[in-house]
Formats: sequence, structure tokens, C-alpha cells
Amino acid sequence: MKLRHIIESQQFTLPMLVELFDRAHDMEKILKRGGTRDYENKVMASLFYESGLLTRLSFESAMARLGGKVISTEHASQFFSSTPSDSLEDTIRVVDDFCDVIVLRHNHIGGAKRAAEVSTCPVINAGDGKGGQHPTQALLDLYTIHKETNKLDGLKVALVGNLADGRTARSLSYLLGKYERVKLYFIAPKSLQMKEDILSHLGENHVWYTLGEDLNAVLPEVDVVYINRIERERFAGADEEYTKIVQRYFIDAGSLKLMQPQAIIMHPLSRENEIAPEVDKDPRSAYFRQTQNGITIRMALLAWVME
Amino acid sequence: MKLRHIIESQQFTLPMLVELFDRAHDMEKILKRGGTRDYENKVMASLFYESGLLTRLSFESAMARLGGKVISTEHASQFFSSTPSDSLEDTIRVVDDFCDVIVLRHNHIGGAKRAAEVSTCPVINAGDGKGGQHPTQALLDLYTIHKETNKLDGLKVALVGNLADGRTARSLSYLLGKYERVKLYFIAPKSLQMKEDILSHLGENHVWYTLGEDLNAVLPEVDVVYINRIERERFAGADEEYTKIVQRYFIDAGSLKLMQPQAIIMHPLSRENEIAPEVDKDPRSAYFRQTQNGITIRMALLAWVME
Amino acid sequence: MKLRHIIESQQFTLPMLVELFDRAHDMEKILKRGGTRDYENKVMASLFYESGLLTRLSFESAMARLGGKVISTEHASQFFSSTPSDSLEDTIRVVDDFCDVIVLRHNHIGGAKRAAEVSTCPVINAGDGKGGQHPTQALLDLYTIHKETNKLDGLKVALVGNLADGRTARSLSYLLGKYERVKLYFIAPKSLQMKEDILSHLGENHVWYTLGEDLNAVLPEVDVVYINRIERERFAGADEEYTKIVQRYFIDAGSLKLMQPQAIIMHPLSRENEIAPEVDKDPRSAYFRQTQNGITIRMALLAWVME
Repeated sequence: MKLRHIIESQQFTLPMLVELFDRAHDMEKILKRGGTRDYENKVMASLFYESGLLTRLSFESAMARLGGKVISTEHASQFFSSTPSDSLEDTIRVVDDFCDVIVLRHNHIGGAKRAAEVSTCPVINAGDGKGGQHPTQALLDLYTIHKETNKLDGLKVALVGNLADGRTARSLSYLLGKYERVKLYFIAPKSLQMKEDILSHLGENHVWYTLGEDLNAVLPEVDVVYINRIERERFAGADEEYTKIVQRYFIDAGSLKLMQPQAIIMHPLSRENEIAPEVDKDPRSAYFRQTQNGITIRMALLAWVME
Repeated sequence: MKLRHIIESQQFTLPMLVELFDRAHDMEKILKRGGTRDYENKVMASLFYESGLLTRLSFESAMARLGGKVISTEHASQFFSSTPSDSLEDTIRVVDDFCDVIVLRHNHIGGAKRAAEVSTCPVINAGDGKGGQHPTQALLDLYTIHKETNKLDGLKVALVGNLADGRTARSLSYLLGKYERVKLYFIAPKSLQMKEDILSHLGENHVWYTLGEDLNAVLPEVDVVYINRIERERFAGADEEYTKIVQRYFIDAGSLKLMQPQAIIMHPLSRENEIAPEVDKDPRSAYFRQTQNGITIRMALLAWVME
Repeated sequence: MKLRHIIESQQFTLPMLVELFDRAHDMEKILKRGGTRDYENKVMASLFYESGLLTRLSFESAMARLGGKVISTEHASQFFSSTPSDSLEDTIRVVDDFCDVIVLRHNHIGGAKRAAEVSTCPVINAGDGKGGQHPTQALLDLYTIHKETNKLDGLKVALVGNLADGRTARSLSYLLGKYERVKLYFIAPKSLQMKEDILSHLGENHVWYTLGEDLNAVLPEVDVVYINRIERERFAGADEEYTKIVQRYFIDAGSLKLMQPQAIIMHPLSRENEIAPEVDKDPRSAYFRQTQNGITIRMALLAWVME
């Protein structure tokens, strides 16, 4: 299949996901051989309007493993302070002549879509605004689940933490909803629950889901616990509330006892206080394998859009 | 010919400009073939003491297309806050051992010249201070005019906007003055008019020029309208004055009607409020082709100084 | 010998130093031939939590000369403002999958050691906190002394300036103490003298040293004058004291007259007011040759840990 821009997780159909996972599998083999030089004539532009260090380094490493070159800005908005906010289109129309693919993190929802509308080269959305999308994270999450659990149909997934702002939980929900008999457990305090737009999308597509506040109640049920960062800064001046929430939605040795032996714990990283250090050593903790999968998924996506 | 440092547009004689355009033409062919690996052993250092994102990415893309490698800082001055301002020379004497060419944007006029005086490798001025020079921009502007209008002798060019601070308009005026029967129309409010140093240089070289405030009066005359950014920040606390000026020096559908069918509109980008969006689609709008030409001109210049 | 992480200068035994200098010598030959492509499949991650522009560019140039690729952040701490300070370990556990070697400058003493404890790829300490270590600087300093003076046993070295905070002077003292009959002269105002931990280490190892405040008294004695930056910012609100100290620990034409004809002057750069410009032209001024040696030493170290 053809793939041009990567803007939101909804654009990936089931056959495309099958193809992506095949491509990622091939990239794993290439990585083991030390990468390739097939893309040595290609240039990727990283345009980050807000911080996203690990995402940026993951994309740039993926491009390096493909043999390609990178031009990059860590904090574009800092360097455009005097220009109006709607200059994104102009920037893209300039930068698209400098490169073969643009990886964009923008500070407003819809930034990647606006970029794709004017760009002559493929645009990959690396996160657009709070509550927007971050499709490559969702794709690597899905690939991780696929590799770790060896199934996607019939999967039971708990999505936990700040679901209201969490780009990754939102995008992943869209994707998981494509598979058969999937059950989604949204576990969060009411103030941080999954927003209505995702829930109604799932409803329309007859995806089973439930909303809850009690993490321990669902831990024995699920195949995957996907916990999201709860940002302390969101609770500025309400330290007590933050502490209370973090204590309720926290994975520790006790949580591990409740979980099934084959279940896995995922986190998009970086984490703040959601997972106790003692959990890291448990083989069910998949979050560092998850970031590894990010390289192969991003290699596959970059190669695909540059075809 | 030999070319070592690129400090100011005046250093380019007519035969050098002919050679540069030939070299740029060759680079266009190389770009179409996907770039070269001829410079894969070369390292370019980007030292940006103040922001210049699009210029930096343009240079770094050009180096990548040549097969070369880049070491880079987006905001050098931020990382030297505790050292005295005159450490530029020391920095250059260190960095010149790290690379084969230095691309420098400095925050003071004369920065590139100071750097060239101590550097053991070629220095390219990527802009030095407000009202200083930005020769590679002027060269790509000239190359764009050459490609778009297929003539330079006898050309009529309106330079519009903030000419007082505009590095690019200043550098371009120097270069255009080298050609036969060129006519320059400096169109700006009195407070932002072209400075005396350029005007007396043109006078001494018998270049025809005129100063004016009325853009519409010259639009039917000229082959090229080169409009410069008028920075809102320059008018801090004088919003009304800014609005009045921007409205007077603004290209919109009405301006297009006044212009000749073969004339072109140029802008060094990024723009603020100088050009209406509806103008972008007119084939006479050359500003995005202008940034494309930046890649080939910079490839040609980098290759030339590294010979 | 095997070398994995480079955390502190103490880890280098005399046989390792001999091997390093041999390797650096080989790299000099490779550099003269224009570098190598042997490491073109390798990726280095530069993680700088605080500024260190020249060190970062030196490492990135070394990696480029080896043919390798770089992923980089100029100011990691800026991009982690909302995460807790102990997330370094998590960051390393993510980034180690993106690359083959991590070059880390951390803002706290012990950062590199903490990183090495969790990293699956080699970690190189590029400076950790004020008063911490900066081993590659010490190694290139030692290599410079070796190349310039052609001896290390029996060497007399004056270490001058801010010895209390100076990572480089501290690390170098450790290394010099490994050689026979070395004499170390610590010349600084009492408030900036070498700290007790280094002095007792030298004492235990029977290394001859002396503490003094009079630079001119030792200049005729020594083979090497190693002068350190005295940061003006350290004397905020005490400008007079700063001026007094800088005037006492200052190398100028008069100092050159006192020095032996074969002695050398070194400085880790960047400098503030420690050396008069007229000194730069004296062949005994080795500080710009010192930064050159940084490239070959870092090429040698990178290649060594990636083996």
C-alpha cells in the first residue's frame, strides 16, 4: 500500500497495520545486521515546536539506522518568537524543499494536518498539542502489545492515569478498537477520564469499554496495563490532590501480585511517580522494550513514506 | 577561481557570479540525481549566536545533499552567557580544528570578518547583526532573479519594506549594482529607508536609484518586487504606526493587477504581514522557489570554499 | 585491553594510558587521510544536561571523523523541566536502545556513574557537575603534555587558577600522579585552592606537591603551566576581589620571560581573563593545539568503547 502523511492513528486500517508490522519485523532484522545504507541520500527534518526529547531522538536514531541524514531543531517556537503563530504553513513550505520527510511536533492540535496540507514531502505527526494525537507512539504501543502478547483480537487492556490529556492513550484507544472482541478499561479519577469524543467513537464502532476508578479491581482481569504519566504540573497549587491521585494509580509490588502471569505493564515514558522502581525488574514490565520497538516502527514508517 | 571566506556580498565580482551560477546549475543536476557522496569526509560547523532557523536548516540540508556531516548549535550565545563577548575569536580558533567549514551567524556586525581573520578553515557569514550582511541570501536572491527573469542587465527592482535594518536588501543592492543599466527603487517609509552607506556606494558606482514611499506607483514599472519583513517588535508600543506602515507596504490581489505579467515577487522569509495569502498561488510569486534556490546556491558555495 | 564506560580519570592505569596514546596516534594518521568510514553504522548520543558547547562539538566532530552518526541535545535539562531530577536513569534506559555510545554531561556529580549503572551501551562522562570529573579533558590534556614535552616522568606542572571547582585540574592531577617523580605546584588564592580529597589521594600515593599563591615564583621552575578559568560569575557582587585575583593569576609577556624556553602553557578553554592576547603567538602557547588533540583522543576513546 501507499502511505504519504502520518497524521492520526485513525488513518491506519487493519491491512495497513498488518503491513506495518511486517515491515517493522524486517527492520528488526536490518537493525541486527547493523542498519542499512539504503537511505543515505535522504534527509529528514525534525521540527519540534515543543519539547519531546525522547521522541525526537527516537526518530533521529531510526533515520540514522536507515543510513539517512537529519536536520533538526529542538525547540522551534523559541526561534520564531517574533513571528505570528500561523507561520507554520510558511515554515513547512520552505522546509519541504530541504528534506525528504518532515517529522513535526507542534504545540497546537491540528498542526500536523495543517502542515500536510501544504507540504510537498511527507509529514509525520510526532505529537500535536495537549489532547491531540501522537500516532507513531500509538503504533509502537500496538506493535509492542502484538509482540508481547501475540494476540490483538480478544485483548483486555486497562488504560490508566491521565486519560483526558494523554495523547498516547487516546490514539491507542482508536487503534485497539479496530480489533475483534477487544475490551477497554478506562481507569482514572473522574477529572482525568477519557473524553467523550473517543468514547462515542468506540460506541459507534461497538467496542466494549468501561469507565472506572479502581485500578486494583481490574488488574486481575487484563492482559495489558497501560499507565500514563500524571503530570505534577497539572496540579499546581493542589499538591494534596496530586498525591492522592498518584497513590491510587500506582503500580508496585502489590499490583504485580494481582496481575496475571502473562500480562504486561506499559508506559509511554517518561514517567513521574506512576511505577515503583521495584517493578522494573519484573519480566512483565515492558516499557523499556516498548521504546526499543519505537526504533523499528519508526524505521518502518520513515521508509514507507519515503518510497 | 579560488574562494576562501564568504563575508560580504561586495567580494563577489561579476566573473565570480558567473562561475557561481554555473556551479549552482551543476548542483541542481546533482540534486535531481539524489545528491552526491563526494564530501562524505567533510564536516561543517553551524555556529548560530542568534536565531536563524530557516537559514541554518538550509545550510545543513545543503551539506547533507553533498554527503557531508554537520556539527551544530542552534543558539550559541545561550551557551556562552558567562564568557565575555570577545571570546568569538577563541571559539573559532577551537572549532576550526573540528571541521572543514564554519557557517556563522553572529549577533554583532563584523562577527564573520573577525572569525575569518583567525580561522584556519573557511568561514561563511550566515548573517551578522541587524544592518550587517547576509551574503548567501543575497546570492540566492540574485540567482533567483537570474533564473526567473533570465536577465540581470537592464533590470528594474523595487526593494520594499524595512530597508534600514534589512540585511538582505542591503546585500542584494550591492550585488545588483554590479550589472548594467540596473534601476533600483527603494520604497519605504522615511524611518525605514535604505541607509546612506549603501546609497553613496551606488552613487559612486553610477547606479540609478530612486527613493520613494508609494509602492503602487512603482509596481507597473518593475521586473522584481523584493519585499522585506517589517518586524512588529520594532514598533513595540506603537501598534498604530506599525499597522499604518504594514497596510501601505502590502502585496495583495490589487498589487498583482498593477504588476507586469512577467514580473516576480520575492521575500526572504519568514514573512509577517507583508503579503496576502491569496498572492501565494499567483505564478509570479517566487518566494518559495527562492528558498529552493538557497539549497543549490549553498551547495555550490560550500563545495567551492572546501576545494 | 577492554574499555566499556569512561567515568573518571582514576580508572585509567598506566598500561591503558600507553594504549590510549598509541590509539590516538593511529587516529592522527586516519585524520590526515580525511577520516574513516569504519563506524558508519554506529550512532552516538550526546546528552548535555548543562552547557558545554566546545566539548559537545569536539565529541560530535570526532564521531563524524569516524564516519558515525550523532543524535544530540544541547540542553537536556531544559526539556525535562517537569520531570523529577532522578529520571536520569529512565532516560538512559531509553536512549541506550537508540545508540551505540552515550556521551553525557550531567549537572550533578555522579551523574555519569549513575548512567553507566543502568546503561546497556557504553557511557562517556563529558563532565558531571561543578567539582566533579571530566576525564576525557584530562586525557587530552595528558596527551598534549606527552606530545609537547615528550616526557611524563619527572615532569613539573603548575596548576593555576580556580582549582577548587575546576573539574579539569582535578582530573588531570589524578592522572599526573601516576607518573614517576612528577612535581605538582597548586597555585591559587586560598579560597580557590585544590580540595582536600585530591591532596590526600596524592599524599597516599607519595606524589610530590606544594601549595602556593605566587605564580611568578614557580614559572621559572616548571615544564607546564596549566591555567584554569576563573569565572567572573563566581564573584557576583565582589568585582574588586575578582579583579585582584585575575591580575595575580594572569599570563602575559612578562610571564613568558620568566618561563623556560621549552615550557608550555595550557588552558582547557574557554578562557575569560587569564591569558593576555599577546601570549597567543608564542610557540609555547599550546592551548589551541590542546583542543586539536581533543579530536584524536575522543576518536580513540569512542572507537575503543564501541569495539
